[in-house]
Amino acid sequence: MITDSLTSEIKTPYTLNLSEGDPEEKREEIRRYFHQTYDAYEALFEPMIKKVAYTTRADALRHPLIFYYGHTATFFMNKLVLAKLVDRINPKFESIFAIGVDEMSWDDLNEAHYEWPDPEAVREYRSQVRDCIDNLITELPVNLPISWESPFWPIMMGIEHERIHLETSSVLIRQLPLEQLDSQHPLWQPSSEDTSPVSNSLIEVPAGEVKLGKSREDAYYGWDNEYGSYSKDITHFSASKYLVSNKEFLEFVEDGGYSTQSYWTEEGWNWVSYEKATCPRFWLPQEDGSYKFRTMLDQIDMPWSWPAETNYLEAKAFCNWKAEKTGQPVRLPTEEEWYRLLDYVALPDAPEWEQVPGNLNLEGPASSVPVDTHEFKHGFYDVVGNVWQHTETPIRGYAGFEIHPLYDDFSTPTFDTKHNMIKGGSWISTGNELMRDSRYAFRRHFYQHAGFRYIVSEAPVEIPDDSWETDPEVIPYCEFNYGKEYFGVANYPEKIAQICLDLATKRTRGKALALGCKTGRSAFELAAGYEHVTGIDFTARMIRIGVQMKDKGYTQYVLPEEGEIVSFHQANLQELGLDCVRDNVDFMQGDLSNLKEIYSGYDLILLDTLLERTYSPEKFLKSVHDRLNEKGLLVISSTYDWQTNITEQENWLGGFKVDGENVTTRDAFDRILSANFKQLGNSRDVEYVLRKTARTFDHNVAEVTVWEKK
Amino acid sequence: MITDSLTSEIKTPYTLNLSEGDPEEKREEIRRYFHQTYDAYEALFEPMIKKVAYTTRADALRHPLIFYYGHTATFFMNKLVLAKLVDRINPKFESIFAIGVDEMSWDDLNEAHYEWPDPEAVREYRSQVRDCIDNLITELPVNLPISWESPFWPIMMGIEHERIHLETSSVLIRQLPLEQLDSQHPLWQPSSEDTSPVSNSLIEVPAGEVKLGKSREDAYYGWDNEYGSYSKDITHFSASKYLVSNKEFLEFVEDGGYSTQSYWTEEGWNWVSYEKATCPRFWLPQEDGSYKFRTMLDQIDMPWSWPAETNYLEAKAFCNWKAEKTGQPVRLPTEEEWYRLLDYVALPDAPEWEQVPGNLNLEGPASSVPVDTHEFKHGFYDVVGNVWQHTETPIRGYAGFEIHPLYDDFSTPTFDTKHNMIKGGSWISTGNELMRDSRYAFRRHFYQHAGFRYIVSEAPVEIPDDSWETDPEVIPYCEFNYGKEYFGVANYPEKIAQICLDLATKRTRGKALALGCKTGRSAFELAAGYEHVTGIDFTARMIRIGVQMKDKGYTQYVLPEEGEIVSFHQANLQELGLDCVRDNVDFMQGDLSNLKEIYSGYDLILLDTLLERTYSPEKFLKSVHDRLNEKGLLVISSTYDWQTNITEQENWLGGFKVDGENVTTRDAFDRILSANFKQLGNSRDVEYVLRKTARTFDHNVAEVTVWEKK
Repeated sequence: MITDSLTSEIKTPYTLNLSEGDPEEKREEIRRYFHQTYDAYEALFEPMIKKVAYTTRADALRHPLIFYYGHTATFFMNKLVLAKLVDRINPKFESIFAIGVDEMSWDDLNEAHYEWPDPEAVREYRSQVRDCIDNLITELPVNLPISWESPFWPIMMGIEHERIHLETSSVLIRQLPLEQLDSQHPLWQPSSEDTSPVSNSLIEVPAGEVKLGKSREDAYYGWDNEYGSYSKDITHFSASKYLVSNKEFLEFVEDGGYSTQSYWTEEGWNWVSYEKATCPRFWLPQEDGSYKFRTMLDQIDMPWSWPAETNYLEAKAFCNWKAEKTGQPVRLPTEEEWYRLLDYVALPDAPEWEQVPGNLNLEGPASSVPVDTHEFKHGFYDVVGNVWQHTETPIRGYAGFEIHPLYDDFSTPTFDTKHNMIKGGSWISTGNELMRDSRYAFRRHFYQHAGFRYIVSEAPVEIPDDSWETDPEVIPYCEFNYGKEYFGVANYPEKIAQICLDLATKRTRGKALALGCKTGRSAFELAAGYEHVTGIDFTARMIRIGVQMKDKGYTQYVLPEEGEIVSFHQANLQELGLDCVRDNVDFMQGDLSNLKEIYSGYDLILLDTLLERTYSPEKFLKSVHDRLNEKGLLVISSTYDWQTNITEQENWLGGFKVDGENVTTRDAFDRILSANFKQLGNSRDVEYVLRKTARTFDHNVAEVTVWEKK
Repeated sequence: MITDSLTSEIKTPYTLNLSEGDPEEKREEIRRYFHQTYDAYEALFEPMIKKVAYTTRADALRHPLIFYYGHTATFFMNKLVLAKLVDRINPKFESIFAIGVDEMSWDDLNEAHYEWPDPEAVREYRSQVRDCIDNLITELPVNLPISWESPFWPIMMGIEHERIHLETSSVLIRQLPLEQLDSQHPLWQPSSEDTSPVSNSLIEVPAGEVKLGKSREDAYYGWDNEYGSYSKDITHFSASKYLVSNKEFLEFVEDGGYSTQSYWTEEGWNWVSYEKATCPRFWLPQEDGSYKFRTMLDQIDMPWSWPAETNYLEAKAFCNWKAEKTGQPVRLPTEEEWYRLLDYVALPDAPEWEQVPGNLNLEGPASSVPVDTHEFKHGFYDVVGNVWQHTETPIRGYAGFEIHPLYDDFSTPTFDTKHNMIKGGSWISTGNELMRDSRYAFRRHFYQHAGFRYIVSEAPVEIPDDSWETDPEVIPYCEFNYGKEYFGVANYPEKIAQICLDLATKRTRGKALALGCKTGRSAFELAAGYEHVTGIDFTARMIRIGVQMKDKGYTQYVLPEEGEIVSFHQANLQELGLDCVRDNVDFMQGDLSNLKEIYSGYDLILLDTLLERTYSPEKFLKSVHDRLNEKGLLVISSTYDWQTNITEQENWLGGFKVDGENVTTRDAFDRILSANFKQLGNSRDVEYVLRKTARTFDHNVAEVTVWEKK
């Protein structure tokens, strides 16, 4: 070990209630929680007795542990500087220890780019940071509840962040060469238990509704991805009594699991081929065909009764193999199914635990224990604890998702359908990780102290296509349809739909057609009054958002703020009060200049800022009466700003001179429509605003005319 | 003649007072004025006894007279349809007779494109139009005064329009083959007078101020170009007693005037070469070297005492020749000088004439008369009347120029510095043409019944560069700086300047620098408080507008309305209350990323939405303190919307992540400026709106920060 004094005990209290209590006692509680966390993280590095352990890449695509040693301190500083609560202590350290937590790209692998400081210098830096934060905790006013906006929030953020790295760094240490480590360190001794392997079985979990999402008023610290609301009815399923043990997993290995492509997803097979994997990473194949096992600091005999630790891809392949062998629909649980099981065993949340319910919170050994150690209700074992459990569900935000301004990339880079959630925590999970609401996700090939429980269910897994819309043409229309109002200008699609609905109060309201529906808001709004609404847009990329809203009830998009800085936004139908009309709306791609004849029989056609964006608008206008029912309404909204790159000038409806006199588009409406329509009321102006960046917008004024079929 | 009955008399009352009188009497007055005008125009065509006269091109670049015969009726209809007062009578005629009054391009010359109707059919159409307008005059309510907005205005417009064509068509008839015409028509007989040629001489005109421009409250019909206000001090000059007679012009011809390039402007020499002209157009060179003369309907002996009729180019060449011969600064008068002479002879305006003061209003013969026939005060002849007089001045709008919405291309196409004004009227000038305020202009090579008077003056001719700004990048900034407010957002340059001036009330206010001044408004506004302001912009096309405002006090620009339809706008400093600061402002082109060192010693530097539009902004910011005096102010306004096509990302000041954290441009200000500046007050947001079309706008929110040099 490179430090002089050893930590004698690691204290891991549950994360703090930030709502209740005496403010000054809360201040001391936070101080204790900070120091205990900082101490625990220091203790994790004590077994790294060789300096080279700090600069060895435990994983080829990760920084060496020296980075992580400095990183948790620098994270505190960077967030507190951003919050304007402290000044920098060591700008150089606070740059090199800032980023690179995740897998790096191949470009970053060149060691020459990194001149890591000496661990002693980092230790000294950590000490300065500790003092700085300690002072800050002393000086800052404590106002309960401590909320997102509180200056104590970034302190809690730093603490919980360090608790995450306590676990993830332990996984990296588990990959260091043994000779760099002190396997005898008293604080990090693994279990010596290994029971005779048990036979797994299935236990029924009844159907039930799962309600997820943390309230903004919740008393405990949470990461951005935990907030919001989401509920789902879960059909009954069976789940394995135990986590899959090494012994159970061995059947898959010995049955040629790692060499049979059909068990693997495409991503899984790519991984297995690239890694040339033949068994789980912490299994150590011996020359005689037997296996040893890697704990955090040591190599031990294979503990067959411990849970198998795999990545998602291996767990998934095991399930596919098991399904084939049994003929049953075996798979991993979804996030919701995992919660259904948790609810079923009626486990209270961490702060209410009388004692820790499983192998969790560093209260047991520094390793897994046999899968039949910790029993829960209904005969299940390890519902939480021992190792994390893989799920089928890529992480995404719940309805109402917002990003904390001090940490805008905690979650959003993982909302890419490539990061699956792991649930339940492991022997080294502490703090927020123990909470029911917490949600962590990793790339599917990543290793943590994670295994799995399989389930048997006829319910299909719905994998949401949940990346963030970044198409620069589409995102202004996401905000335009579903986002904030700017300059006091009311939401345009809502307003234009309201104009239509007001006109139609005493009319037949069967089918409506929203042409130029962009990302779909007007179609949903119209469905509040019409039996069925079809939204049509020329651009499939726009329509896709409407389809997402209909199918999933929400959509996610980024908005440019300044330069490359973006903000993240989620819109959902429920919050807009439109969830009830989802079934009455559909979206189609269509071309106004050549619209299929099937689009007819409407009581309303809304032609929304589209005429001036189509290449040949007259044909549609000339025949639109054929698409409308008797007394049907045609509502035209237009800015009349013809553009030659979209509509050749010879196809403009107006905006030119004929025989020396100006002919406006509005004039053309009279010319083309008067035979079959009469105008209702006067034209009116409706403003709309399209956001480009935080400070730049398009602000337009559409003219709306209403025509009734004669 | 092709018509059955001949007109026995042409009545040409003065144009009507539209303000005073009994409404019903006014209705009948207008009706009479309409019929008399219509009659006079019909009478003009009576000498065209051969049908072919209607379809012969009198001028190779003009339509045949059948077009003009139909045109004045169609003009009535098109304006009244536009005003929504009548329905079309003959859509086909109202298309073919609508446009093509002016010289056409070579493309339009193909006769096959035109199938002209029979003159009888046009006569019948004219009769229908007459009835239609007569009915309209009966039906419309008469409210005095009749103003621009009155439904009687387009009727007056049609009448005065026809009076213009009465004259211009007579010039075309003067170019038809004689055999197509009845030279004996009693209404159109020329003068038989030809006095012995008189010797011209110069008479002094004293200096004086000329005030021009018609009031909006004026009682008489006016074309758009007459309104507004303009005044100029005219230095004394001498003017020729007589218009230049044919005899006087002969000296120039015989002295090789048409073959000596040095007398001609470049445009003039091009014309003389192309036309192979050797004398004025209505001089008819005979084989024996003598000349005959063309009147409207006949060929007569050369009337040497009549005014020489030339285009501007010939008149100008004569003056240059005369200047060379006499050694005196001989030239044509400017518009203002012509008015100075008119004021000097104290001629009242047409409606106040007891009798017509010259050869005008068809009250004399259908031709010129000798130049010594009509005497005015101080010994001048033909100050008005006989023939129009060329001037040096291209037509432009006065301050306050606006366009009548029913006739948006009466004047603006001629505001191109290529159309010079003719003044004073000819024997066939009637109606509005007789009024002091009227302003007509033609291309410089065009023929009318026009000659000239020369003057001798030391004053230089200032030819305003007075076209309409149409640069699509510049015009939004003309409106942005000098035009209307949209969405209730206050004029931005005025507001940003006011912020600066408010800050500086108790400070030294010597030199100020407005960087990114666009079209200049902020520089003028700052000059209200600073001794001198330099406005700098990267774009010379922007600066040009500021320079125009400084030099001339006004600028003119078109704005896109819808498609190709534009509106015309004039901005002037006087109306903005900024005329007094013109001398305290100058404009320079400059590049913020590489700004010359001479720009220093300022008490204020305004950096106006420019940082984010320059390619390398940091250098300037780092050294801007060197350009400021002690306690000098730096005011930065920015939308922070960096664009890679302008500023490479490595040169952005903010809008990116450093060590994983967002760095804003505002952060960069602190970093770069804090050593030499302290921030005054808080940042504030200032909105601005850039008009794109009538219904589309950019609406941005700049952040303004103020920095005081330490």
